[in-house]
Amino acid sequence: MSHSTKTDDNARTPSLPVPSPVYAATGLDVWTMMNQAAAEVGAVNLGQGFMSFPPKEFITRAAQKALEENTYNQYAPPRGRPALLEQVAARFGSRLGRPIDTASEISIHAGANEALLSVFTAFLTHGQGEEVIVMEPAFDQYAPNIAMAGGTTVYVPLRAQAPADAVMSSDDWKLDMAELEAAVTPKTRIIVLNTPHNPVGKVFTRPELEQIGAVAERHNLLIIADEVYEHLTFAREHLSIASLPRMWDRTVTVGSAGKLLGVTGWRVGWAVGPHALIQPTLAAHTRIVFTTNTPLQEGVAAAMREASANGFYEAQRNEYQRRRDRLMAIFDDVGLPYVVPDGAYYLLVNAAAVRVPEDYPFPAAIADRGPNFRLAYYFVREFGVSGIPPAEFYCEPHRGLAGDYVRFAFCKTDEGLDAAAAALQKLKHHLQN
Amino acid sequence: MSHSTKTDDNARTPSLPVPSPVYAATGLDVWTMMNQAAAEVGAVNLGQGFMSFPPKEFITRAAQKALEENTYNQYAPPRGRPALLEQVAARFGSRLGRPIDTASEISIHAGANEALLSVFTAFLTHGQGEEVIVMEPAFDQYAPNIAMAGGTTVYVPLRAQAPADAVMSSDDWKLDMAELEAAVTPKTRIIVLNTPHNPVGKVFTRPELEQIGAVAERHNLLIIADEVYEHLTFAREHLSIASLPRMWDRTVTVGSAGKLLGVTGWRVGWAVGPHALIQPTLAAHTRIVFTTNTPLQEGVAAAMREASANGFYEAQRNEYQRRRDRLMAIFDDVGLPYVVPDGAYYLLVNAAAVRVPEDYPFPAAIADRGPNFRLAYYFVREFGVSGIPPAEFYCEPHRGLAGDYVRFAFCKTDEGLDAAAAALQKLKHHLQN
Repeated sequence: MSHSTKTDDNARTPSLPVPSPVYAATGLDVWTMMNQAAAEVGAVNLGQGFMSFPPKEFITRAAQKALEENTYNQYAPPRGRPALLEQVAARFGSRLGRPIDTASEISIHAGANEALLSVFTAFLTHGQGEEVIVMEPAFDQYAPNIAMAGGTTVYVPLRAQAPADAVMSSDDWKLDMAELEAAVTPKTRIIVLNTPHNPVGKVFTRPELEQIGAVAERHNLLIIADEVYEHLTFAREHLSIASLPRMWDRTVTVGSAGKLLGVTGWRVGWAVGPHALIQPTLAAHTRIVFTTNTPLQEGVAAAMREASANGFYEAQRNEYQRRRDRLMAIFDDVGLPYVVPDGAYYLLVNAAAVRVPEDYPFPAAIADRGPNFRLAYYFVREFGVSGIPPAEFYCEPHRGLAGDYVRFAFCKTDEGLDAAAAALQKLKHHLQN
Repeated sequence: MSHSTKTDDNARTPSLPVPSPVYAATGLDVWTMMNQAAAEVGAVNLGQGFMSFPPKEFITRAAQKALEENTYNQYAPPRGRPALLEQVAARFGSRLGRPIDTASEISIHAGANEALLSVFTAFLTHGQGEEVIVMEPAFDQYAPNIAMAGGTTVYVPLRAQAPADAVMSSDDWKLDMAELEAAVTPKTRIIVLNTPHNPVGKVFTRPELEQIGAVAERHNLLIIADEVYEHLTFAREHLSIASLPRMWDRTVTVGSAGKLLGVTGWRVGWAVGPHALIQPTLAAHTRIVFTTNTPLQEGVAAAMREASANGFYEAQRNEYQRRRDRLMAIFDDVGLPYVVPDGAYYLLVNAAAVRVPEDYPFPAAIADRGPNFRLAYYFVREFGVSGIPPAEFYCEPHRGLAGDYVRFAFCKTDEGLDAAAAALQKLKHHLQN
């Protein structure tokens, strides 16, 4: 079907279908790239944020039991299984300080990711040039999801207000409210707020949330509160912006059973908000995936019921705090500063002192992506511990803001953290004075 | 926040975010509407195509076992779990008559629905006015999924070539190839081909597939082969268009583990095709849901391995053929003609002889949607057996082509079919002579 001569227009017609430019790229995503680099050298994988320890048995047992119920193997209602809607209503009712109506104020999704895409799809319209404000560093799915729904992402960075060469608090990362308001245009429709924040570990304070809420109110913006780490805070309680006065009506709060219960592969998430916001979200969800898998919805529902009674959430938080402290101690020992996370399970480590040789043989895919990628790659190859380059969490023009940080996840076993500690001893001889 | 006076432009600004018009509608989808109507009168539900019988134990056991493996509870690679990729490669390698490369020619999806959306998203571009040809009656998710990806649906009906007042073969529903070709414009990008066909039960023949393939080739179209019922044919073997000469390179074949194994709630599907078509599909999938739930992928993989060895597929086909024959016998008995399905698990029954009183108290949501909806609603209320009005499977201007058909699903227990038979006895007294 190839044409050896080009004599007319037809000869230039491609002989096979071509994809939309957005999806034509064949480059690897950062997760696959770093997972592969880690696997090649047998590194300790502190990159992607999945748990390397087993889920608690009562959680997997709950899903196993659900599989025995015939109807739990067939389609769930698009909104979700009643048992799970009830559990989400109970948890968020107490988080948000109001009763949640299971028939109209919740939708269950195929992961928090699909919940976010559903909200973007429901509230953005292609061809309108609508804008969504996202705070950097930002989870790398936001911008592609916003683009898929027809929007443009406008970035407002969190800025560190403390010297990067010493340990700092995640509270030191501030959103400049004037900068936020300056980013609003007549085309702005949505603010995405991620708290507790990945990868900074920042837990937004009440005054910060009030100020963000005031901006949203002044410009009639929808707030998407990505609160998938709401159960993991180490300094103070997580506060949902939807619980603030007048915020319920303009906020969709997104959560994740995978994060809450330590089963990231189950792909069950949710969106909570007023009927006027959830109804279109559910309509989009119904078209995107129709419905979420039934047995794991029922498993999550039963596990959440049990977890509320057996102290799971407190125990889990304590375990994560211990893991966080262990990882921070490792970097204290080798002498690299970091940002103390008050929430979530990531540690931003400043590896500026690591000497990356100028002639190091980087693969082209890494070399092309800038110094932050090269640093993360060098780190995994030379020290056998993989992290994620946070440059991936910034838009192209802001990549420099990633500085010399590498993100390490601490949702990992003690053995994994011990192995990381051992591997990183080598680092002591590599640091610049 | 309401404005009591409208003195300037600001006063007309809505005080809360409004959804995109597409997702603002609050109407019920046909599935929910008919499920509710069925539940209200305690009807035998032959509407939605979910199984009312339990999955085989070896299938649910496979998923239960997967939940015991720690890593099977965490993120799967976006492409899918290796074990499932291998099973899909084995099944479709033999269907398509060629080795399938698990590393580049398959992607696993959160249901066949999400596979379809991923292909549409990957190959259509918003704002280009691109068109997708779909054959009516058409599964009701195609058009919204095409629209979500930026395309416009162009409908070409299958046309019954036999009198509707007698039992006819699903082979009698023909695609007019001249009509198909006439529907192609310079903007056409994709043909969606559903075989075995829902709801007609038509299994496309080799000559039909060759003619559709020739049209695709002449106009350089992508073919999406929705073959979710490939395992259920009753007259002759299912034939995949991708197995025809030169068709592999322009075809993505979509399948469903939920349909194949009788677990529609598991939400695991796949897309199979050449690297050049699967790579962008996978890129879209990665943004839509990131990855498909892991434990049920592993459950499907283990169950498919076992099913290939234990004769499950043959036994399942025989059971469905028995259920089909039972349901046809019921309508033979009461005297309503139908279309004999050669595949899938739906029966189109011509209920033209049912007398629907002109003054029947239809709810507005039903009355508004035309005679075919009213017929299906009357049927469930008066005879206690629910079906789906196939008008939902036609575009608005073609709704009349749904005629007096009602779609009944036979993926139901013997008890359910017996109950339907009993309920439908009443019908004998209602038929026009």
